Amino acid sequence: MVELILLRHGESLWNREGRFTGWTDVDLSPRGIEEAHRAAALLGDGGYTFRVAWTSVLKRAIRTLWIVMDDLDLMYVPVHRSWRLNEKSYGALQGLDKQETARKYGAEQVHLWRRAYDVRPPPLPWDDRRHPRFDPRYADLDPESLPATESLHDTLERVLPCWESQIAADLRQGLPVLIVAHGNSLRALVKYLDGIPDDEIADLNIPTGYPLIYELDSDLEAVRHYYLGDPEEVAAATRGVARQAGAG
Amino acid sequence: MVELILLRHGESLWNREGRFTGWTDVDLSPRGIEEAHRAAALLGDGGYTFRVAWTSVLKRAIRTLWIVMDDLDLMYVPVHRSWRLNEKSYGALQGLDKQETARKYGAEQVHLWRRAYDVRPPPLPWDDRRHPRFDPRYADLDPESLPATESLHDTLERVLPCWESQIAADLRQGLPVLIVAHGNSLRALVKYLDGIPDDEIADLNIPTGYPLIYELDSDLEAVRHYYLGDPEEVAAATRGVARQAGAG
Repeated sequence: MVELILLRHGESLWNREGRFTGWTDVDLSPRGIEEAHRAAALLGDGGYTFRVAWTSVLKRAIRTLWIVMDDLDLMYVPVHRSWRLNEKSYGALQGLDKQETARKYGAEQVHLWRRAYDVRPPPLPWDDRRHPRFDPRYADLDPESLPATESLHDTLERVLPCWESQIAADLRQGLPVLIVAHGNSLRALVKYLDGIPDDEIADLNIPTGYPLIYELDSDLEAVRHYYLGDPEEVAAATRGVARQAGAG
Repeated sequence: MVELILLRHGESLWNREGRFTGWTDVDLSPRGIEEAHRAAALLGDGGYTFRVAWTSVLKRAIRTLWIVMDDLDLMYVPVHRSWRLNEKSYGALQGLDKQETARKYGAEQVHLWRRAYDVRPPPLPWDDRRHPRFDPRYADLDPESLPATESLHDTLERVLPCWESQIAADLRQGLPVLIVAHGNSLRALVKYLDGIPDDEIADLNIPTGYPLIYELDSDLEAVRHYYLGDPEEVAAATRGVARQAGAG
């Protein structure tokens, strides 16, 4: 039996402002920083630890991880960053105000862009400065392979190679792993781990800042999973995420 | 031509208290944190960057690196931690007051323990709780291979495999590298890069918090090196380090 800890980063500055974020590298808000400390306290109080950490290349996830490592006196643990754990790309919606976008395109359309498994938001044009090909952190990747927009399905497809070839290898060695990532990259992973059907995934919500523990058997099948934290608080946080249609 | 940036972490809490540190995992002091921000500003103002970062498994180096990455908006850069970049082990001196130790053993003996190339401080006994075999961060290493004390020569011997098999590979790919480490692991590396003879290394002092830039040719031979920062301030900081007999 090996433990996998999933942690969704807390509130970012654009979450707070109600703007679509996706691959934009927005930092945590003060509240998001508090959420990271709370997650660390929940892990520490429960006696949980990790021997390897995985995160995205976005600073709201990395800073969350740094806070957890610092609070748990685990700054020495190896950390792997992968673009494959990034948030879902929201394409041309990135930077736009969520309410304004709903007024313009209709709440129903925006809900589909945000939650449906196979619907992609409008893509970033190739020459849009927001396209990831202009970002030096992706300089080693083929620009054609970088997403201009993504559905959750697309996100799952690019998360899986990181899971299968890298994170799973750590777990198979018996190393407990912490993954600090984003609403949709974690929804994609949970869909895979729990075998959630495509048409049910829109209802899956992951609250920010509450560690989600998976116990995996030697085939890395999920035996059980549970959140750390007061169950009523976790449920309330999950409903809060569901109300805003969550990730973004 | 590829750039290698060496950075010695700033003041730690035990530096401030005048205690031998070595492999003890002591955090930065507030002044050490300021030194890390200054180093980041010097790099940023000079237009320096890095594509890979290397550091030890000790938090005073890791926190220095985190501050630099954060200030330069480079949190996404891959980081490798290695025990091979740790400070020289000060053995049974770790935790002792430097002045008290000098009164007990004589200033000359303490100077040799700290600066001579081939002299080791008294070793940590096998059952001493300070022995690194009790520290979970070294759990994957053979306990017999962990140092109970080290000379600078020993330190160089265990730094080199990390340089030769790992850091050099990054540089050969043309990636500029930042190494954030310690007084003696960096003195060891500089001795190697500059071919400094054994009997001259005692006079080499590396100031804290001033980036040291090496320009390396395609064979990774050092073409030139220089510190960033006001030359008089760097010289004064180097003299300060020399006066305290430096690292510790």
